[in-house]
Amino acid sequence: MRLDFSVAVHSLFYLDEHSPRKIASRELAASLDLNAVVIRNILSVLHKKGYIEGTVGKNGGYQLKKALADINVGELYDVTIPPTLSYARFITGQSEGINKADRISSNMAETLTDLFTLADDEYRAFYHRFTLADLKRDLYQHGYFKQLVKNKNK
Amino acid sequence: MRLDFSVAVHSLFYLDEHSPRKIASRELAASLDLNAVVIRNILSVLHKKGYIEGTVGKNGGYQLKKALADINVGELYDVTIPPTLSYARFITGQSEGINKADRISSNMAETLTDLFTLADDEYRAFYHRFTLADLKRDLYQHGYFKQLVKNKNK
Repeated sequence: MRLDFSVAVHSLFYLDEHSPRKIASRELAASLDLNAVVIRNILSVLHKKGYIEGTVGKNGGYQLKKALADINVGELYDVTIPPTLSYARFITGQSEGINKADRISSNMAETLTDLFTLADDEYRAFYHRFTLADLKRDLYQHGYFKQLVKNKNK
Repeated sequence: MRLDFSVAVHSLFYLDEHSPRKIASRELAASLDLNAVVIRNILSVLHKKGYIEGTVGKNGGYQLKKALADINVGELYDVTIPPTLSYARFITGQSEGINKADRISSNMAETLTDLFTLADDEYRAFYHRFTLADLKRDLYQHGYFKQLVKNKNK
């Protein structure tokens, strides 16, 4: 779900902000105001994908492995919210063709799936245009990101 | 929810296909494989927005008021799935600044809201590039719409 992406962004910002200090998931949980288990699941994905490194034990914790300027927002989005392969629950009609005489009903699923998939591609492409460094700058200079998008769209 | 859009598209295709015959919501419900009440709620929106006209009574039913080529997919999307003004449930951190010392946490909500809003604008802009006539052609010639997008993106 979309929260996973927000948690990933927030965590990476936090690690960057406190770099090179090692951050425990408990500390992140406090900043994110979320349960540490939720955080750890997402950190585990970020670790597997090479965004962060972690050590366990008394002085353990997580650190960034990449600079924010080298982390693409779209890649992070794809990692944390994988594309939905099926839009089945948003689709009407009888895909099994119970009523073959109704050509609309029997063809709707394929057409709507293409429409939603192509729209989702476009949606993801938007995120791919930015790095986490672009986004982090907006944290302390709110409005920066909006302006950046406006300039890129010109 | 996204189903409302699919129901609207399916209904308008059905009215177009059977034009100028008046279509009862019961008949649409059979084609859409959905409860007639759900359909009627969405038809009522389409009626209010001037996409269809309807008459009640024995020989009543709905008819298209606009040609499919004059119905923009994005406008229909906006009508049936109004933009989410708040992404609150996808946002981490304490917007109320319980912990003001944590600058990331207290600024995340604004930055993520801008990001999601701008991405959503882009998503909707995609739909605005097509008419229902473009989409209906894909029903009977599957792959047409995908090719159309590919050509437009060149």
